[in-house]
Amino acid sequence: MVSVYVHQNGKTTHVERVEPEWLDPSSGVTMWVDIEKPTPEEGRAVLADTFKFHPLAVEDALSEIHDPKIELYDGAYLYLILHGIDHQEEEHWFATRDVDFFLGRNYLVTIHDGHSRSIRAVKEICSQHARILAEGPVALMHRIIDSMVDNYRPEIEGLEKQLNQLEDEAILGHREDMVRDILSLKRDLGSLRRVVIPQRDAVGRLARREFPMIADEMAYRFRDVYDHLVRLSDEATLLQDRVTGILEAYLSTISNRLNRVMKVLTVMSTIFLPLTVLTGMWGMNVPLPHFPGDAAAQFWWIAGLMVTISVAMLAMFRRNGWI
Amino acid sequence: MVSVYVHQNGKTTHVERVEPEWLDPSSGVTMWVDIEKPTPEEGRAVLADTFKFHPLAVEDALSEIHDPKIELYDGAYLYLILHGIDHQEEEHWFATRDVDFFLGRNYLVTIHDGHSRSIRAVKEICSQHARILAEGPVALMHRIIDSMVDNYRPEIEGLEKQLNQLEDEAILGHREDMVRDILSLKRDLGSLRRVVIPQRDAVGRLARREFPMIADEMAYRFRDVYDHLVRLSDEATLLQDRVTGILEAYLSTISNRLNRVMKVLTVMSTIFLPLTVLTGMWGMNVPLPHFPGDAAAQFWWIAGLMVTISVAMLAMFRRNGWI
Amino acid sequence: MVSVYVHQNGKTTHVERVEPEWLDPSSGVTMWVDIEKPTPEEGRAVLADTFKFHPLAVEDALSEIHDPKIELYDGAYLYLILHGIDHQEEEHWFATRDVDFFLGRNYLVTIHDGHSRSIRAVKEICSQHARILAEGPVALMHRIIDSMVDNYRPEIEGLEKQLNQLEDEAILGHREDMVRDILSLKRDLGSLRRVVIPQRDAVGRLARREFPMIADEMAYRFRDVYDHLVRLSDEATLLQDRVTGILEAYLSTISNRLNRVMKVLTVMSTIFLPLTVLTGMWGMNVPLPHFPGDAAAQFWWIAGLMVTISVAMLAMFRRNGWI
Amino acid sequence: MVSVYVHQNGKTTHVERVEPEWLDPSSGVTMWVDIEKPTPEEGRAVLADTFKFHPLAVEDALSEIHDPKIELYDGAYLYLILHGIDHQEEEHWFATRDVDFFLGRNYLVTIHDGHSRSIRAVKEICSQHARILAEGPVALMHRIIDSMVDNYRPEIEGLEKQLNQLEDEAILGHREDMVRDILSLKRDLGSLRRVVIPQRDAVGRLARREFPMIADEMAYRFRDVYDHLVRLSDEATLLQDRVTGILEAYLSTISNRLNRVMKVLTVMSTIFLPLTVLTGMWGMNVPLPHFPGDAAAQFWWIAGLMVTISVAMLAMFRRNGWI
Amino acid sequence: MVSVYVHQNGKTTHVERVEPEWLDPSSGVTMWVDIEKPTPEEGRAVLADTFKFHPLAVEDALSEIHDPKIELYDGAYLYLILHGIDHQEEEHWFATRDVDFFLGRNYLVTIHDGHSRSIRAVKEICSQHARILAEGPVALMHRIIDSMVDNYRPEIEGLEKQLNQLEDEAILGHREDMVRDILSLKRDLGSLRRVVIPQRDAVGRLARREFPMIADEMAYRFRDVYDHLVRLSDEATLLQDRVTGILEAYLSTISNRLNRVMKVLTVMSTIFLPLTVLTGMWGMNVPLPHFPGDAAAQFWWIAGLMVTISVAMLAMFRRNGWI
Repeated sequence: MVSVYVHQNGKTTHVERVEPEWLDPSSGVTMWVDIEKPTPEEGRAVLADTFKFHPLAVEDALSEIHDPKIELYDGAYLYLILHGIDHQEEEHWFATRDVDFFLGRNYLVTIHDGHSRSIRAVKEICSQHARILAEGPVALMHRIIDSMVDNYRPEIEGLEKQLNQLEDEAILGHREDMVRDILSLKRDLGSLRRVVIPQRDAVGRLARREFPMIADEMAYRFRDVYDHLVRLSDEATLLQDRVTGILEAYLSTISNRLNRVMKVLTVMSTIFLPLTVLTGMWGMNVPLPHFPGDAAAQFWWIAGLMVTISVAMLAMFRRNGWI
Repeated sequence: MVSVYVHQNGKTTHVERVEPEWLDPSSGVTMWVDIEKPTPEEGRAVLADTFKFHPLAVEDALSEIHDPKIELYDGAYLYLILHGIDHQEEEHWFATRDVDFFLGRNYLVTIHDGHSRSIRAVKEICSQHARILAEGPVALMHRIIDSMVDNYRPEIEGLEKQLNQLEDEAILGHREDMVRDILSLKRDLGSLRRVVIPQRDAVGRLARREFPMIADEMAYRFRDVYDHLVRLSDEATLLQDRVTGILEAYLSTISNRLNRVMKVLTVMSTIFLPLTVLTGMWGMNVPLPHFPGDAAAQFWWIAGLMVTISVAMLAMFRRNGWI
Repeated sequence: MVSVYVHQNGKTTHVERVEPEWLDPSSGVTMWVDIEKPTPEEGRAVLADTFKFHPLAVEDALSEIHDPKIELYDGAYLYLILHGIDHQEEEHWFATRDVDFFLGRNYLVTIHDGHSRSIRAVKEICSQHARILAEGPVALMHRIIDSMVDNYRPEIEGLEKQLNQLEDEAILGHREDMVRDILSLKRDLGSLRRVVIPQRDAVGRLARREFPMIADEMAYRFRDVYDHLVRLSDEATLLQDRVTGILEAYLSTISNRLNRVMKVLTVMSTIFLPLTVLTGMWGMNVPLPHFPGDAAAQFWWIAGLMVTISVAMLAMFRRNGWI
Repeated sequence: MVSVYVHQNGKTTHVERVEPEWLDPSSGVTMWVDIEKPTPEEGRAVLADTFKFHPLAVEDALSEIHDPKIELYDGAYLYLILHGIDHQEEEHWFATRDVDFFLGRNYLVTIHDGHSRSIRAVKEICSQHARILAEGPVALMHRIIDSMVDNYRPEIEGLEKQLNQLEDEAILGHREDMVRDILSLKRDLGSLRRVVIPQRDAVGRLARREFPMIADEMAYRFRDVYDHLVRLSDEATLLQDRVTGILEAYLSTISNRLNRVMKVLTVMSTIFLPLTVLTGMWGMNVPLPHFPGDAAAQFWWIAGLMVTISVAMLAMFRRNGWI
Repeated sequence: MVSVYVHQNGKTTHVERVEPEWLDPSSGVTMWVDIEKPTPEEGRAVLADTFKFHPLAVEDALSEIHDPKIELYDGAYLYLILHGIDHQEEEHWFATRDVDFFLGRNYLVTIHDGHSRSIRAVKEICSQHARILAEGPVALMHRIIDSMVDNYRPEIEGLEKQLNQLEDEAILGHREDMVRDILSLKRDLGSLRRVVIPQRDAVGRLARREFPMIADEMAYRFRDVYDHLVRLSDEATLLQDRVTGILEAYLSTISNRLNRVMKVLTVMSTIFLPLTVLTGMWGMNVPLPHFPGDAAAQFWWIAGLMVTISVAMLAMFRRNGWI
């Protein structure tokens, strides 16, 4: 689905098709062409036939999975791929979806699969406020990118919350199947970094004024987005380090628990094995040495001996700090 | 075996020998010389005698194992080594085989050991469509390299599938000999990266227009291949990180299992050792204290005591969260 | 709350508002405007309306969490974010709070949340000694930054002390819940490094004379601060390495303790299990072989056998180095 | 021992001393001076007195242990230290020995301790074929270096073979003292990399034509040697990674074995402890409950009960996947 | 304590004060001013009042702990901080102490705390041989630095010796408190590297002729010192890697020992638990099945059964490779 927002003579109109004469920068027209979930034919009609973008860029824009990158074609237009983040409740914690931008002197073309909250939001503003397009295509692009990057923040915070919870569980050691969760979180953070870092670098190039269509004033704005992305990638790195720490904590908790179990076993065995031997001795079919007192007193002598041995053992363990 | 495809006056012909006058770029001839599994004499005849390539490059092209690299000789021709990937069912998961390219103004020479699916495919197209060679030797080389790089994708996906399976097995912990498989997968990923990374760098140099024979238009195409290789090497790195995670998961699963085994042992010992002592005491050849009731009731008193002790122990263990 | 220190004609006065004519460097006025815990309106009134700083810088200065950075706007004024450190007894060991600086030809503007001990101290000096402002805004900024960086030293030393204590505890292995403390210390060191390193880089740029308002003489002073920050970040890195070492020490201490427990268990089991069998044999209801001597001697023969077995076992263990 | 090979007027002669007039490049003389295991006086006589090399270079050349490096003195001659590899059966797996080269316009001086197989081999060729020296001192140096680098290949392969064997042993876990071997192999690989990497960098500088005496044609040859050294250092790195993997495999094998031992212990204890209690109960000196049937049947009832308990236990263990 | 060595008209004299006219390079005077353990006033008198060095450099020179660095002030004099190493028997293995150098056209100023063996040694030579100062201040500084760097060698070798011993102990596993020693050695190596690496970089800048007062001839000498420092830092890195290996070896030795202990326990339990049950059965107060032969033979039948079970068990263990 193609939506075209045209700004001409101070008015923004919403049409369905691009008029060829608008492509001329001197026409005084500013356009935003948003292509949502295009069929290949639809996409090619606009990108290749109307705008005459480079065939390779068109192929990239219409295919699915691409890493963030930025490229200048013929010094005339920029082709930029970024990834928006899309929160999903079920299965995975989030998915990233690429949004493609073509930025020329007087137009911005965006291609996406219809899930981009940022574009939806900007479209809404755009249809209500004429001034948005009046600021030019770079300001429009900044607005969309800024909103896309802002959407990363809650995901990072969600991951951090999960991580805090995992850390507590790892230290308490109640659950046994934590490794799956830890590895899954680690993988998520890995994917996040893999998207954020090239994105940061692409926006960094916008901020460093490497491209002729980015004026100084706009570069300051992109520097702001860039700082935001730097922070996000730093945090993802810190969280990854913490995940490693959690795994170590978990393993050490398991070791500690094993230790406690072994101590109980050792204490029990050490106390009861001698007692077993003792009862065995008085159970032998041989005449036994006689304790002082009458026959009935014998049992209590033996029981007393057993209690003494047990108490001595426990005292020794306590002195060694085992119990 | 030497196959020569010559494009002249709009027609492509397939011959067996290179005519010396074709080497002159001004002759209007475009050639593709493919040398399959050459004997050293055959190879030298074409490379050294006809084309007069540098002796060291000729030696490299005719020998077997070489890392990917790219070199410009005398500003006149490029020498490029890349590795195609060859899937093998048995023993190892894949093998890489080097394909050597010499690229001049109006010719492309390829040397390989006959296993390259990419070259076979392009040859087929070449003999059917005259226009392929008409695009020039750089476009031809791009077509071969693009196809070679595409063949890496299914191998990476195969490795990922294996890794997912290993991960599940590691977490369930059913198998004991997993370490061998994990190490083998790790080694495979290491070899893959060792081939992909220099390949990426070599193609990156083609994309950055460092060489005079690569026109802008062609550089865009190589940039596409380069992006593909960047993605491949990133994925190989991510998979390697995951392999490390799997080993950790496996070790922690083993520890957990040991813990469970130890708990059972401890619970059993702790319950039955006191009972053993108890039965031992009533087995002693000394007069025993009498429980209330007649002689027959004595057994049931003792049995009751034993059940009470067992139940108390189990309750204590359950409170400590052991069972 | 806005405090303005104005130096004019050799005198420093403390006022509440900036007069617009002071902004002209040729007016001979030097100003320090300190904005403490500003409301957004208050802040914007000074920063945007009076000084006309760039809107993005103003937004940054009035919002809370920012990484240290340095930026030159329009070649006219510097915008610098640093983090002061604030010791807190309870909960966390320390918190960092950002202090923002705007440095122009004849003024310094600082924005902070009122917790900065450094600014408080410099303010005090400022109101007593006229010469402080006479040295110019760069010297003033150096003085504040120097004091802020000095405050890091005791925190690093505090962390080192904690670490020494943790290390001792880890090696003795008395406590079982150390992992939480170790991870917490590791996280603290991570946050510290994350603040110190960009701070070091920002001050390094001041020291390398990248900005026109920093004269050579001042650059030497910032080089001193820079050296200090290099030392701090090196120490934080060293401490992080030591934390990793402590975790390893702790795990090895746990392993050693497990070993000792297992040895006791093994020694006890190995000695008493044979004795149990022995007493069991003489308890069987079958005629038993007779030792030399009378009936009463039988018990002592058996007891002697048991002692012999025990001593032999202990001797064997001692020879193997177990006890 | 000093050997001098002089090429003059198309003839190569072997003499014992350098004539001073040969040092003049315009004399048309090409020399190779090989100094084998020199006494300090002998060495200084040639290097300092005849060739007038820089005193520090002379000291380096006559002393023993030096890292590979390359230096240009006064733009006039190159001083190069490389390490040859010397296979030794006993004690360590290999030793590296430094060979020093001084390369001037018309001479090559080599200093070594007499163990260099490469120099011995080239000397032999040199005395038989006049054309070797006719190619000039750079070609001669390339020939020696090429041969030295070729000698590394079998050592790397030997290490790889050992590593494969260690890996198999680690996974089978038959030996207990493997750690010593693994650490020793790791140390060897570390030393190897420490020699190969600076060597690679030194030869890389030769290949990049940084020095005036290396013509283009010779640079191609050194590029070949450089590629070889890149490959060697890559392989050493890969092998080091594998050694780490082997240690992990070994530790996991030990853990697995411990697990198996613990399972046997647990199974045995869990089956026999209840039986012990059972036999203890019927051994008590109290009237026992009577099973159906006559007195003789009692034993078989109890035995049946014991077998039932054992079988039930084993069935439970099998269901849990323990045995 | 200030000692001044002045070289004038071919003679070296030892005085207590610097005459102001000597500071003029055209005076033909070469000076070495050594300041040992100065009081702040003494130090400032010489450094600030006489030589008029920059106040920040003077502060650095008179304070204690500084990382090695090099700085050029006003293009006129160099300020260099290096660390000498001081062997201490008790407590720590070594301490490093900073020595500060100011190098001008015709003077060298050194500041240290009196422990520097190198300066003491050079002073001695200086007072005996006039020619030392005649070579100029750079040669003098080289002599001191060379001697300081030489003192590192025995410390590195001492650390290596300790490490070899620790490695042997770790593999034998006799001591239990090794972790403390390993961590301490690791920390020592960390401190050493932290001093050696900036030192290497500072001397590297001297060797690369970045400063106008270092002539080519002197740069060669500093390159020699630089090579020495490169070697030291490489060795410290290698030793650190080995320490990590030792910790792993130690942990694996502990695991192995645990394994051996567990095996003994398992073998003993597995053999004696069935025997206990057996003796328990014949101890029951029920009529027992009768073995062939008379009553006395019963005991020997049972004993035979027990021996048979034990031997069968041992045979099974041996077949499984446990004992």
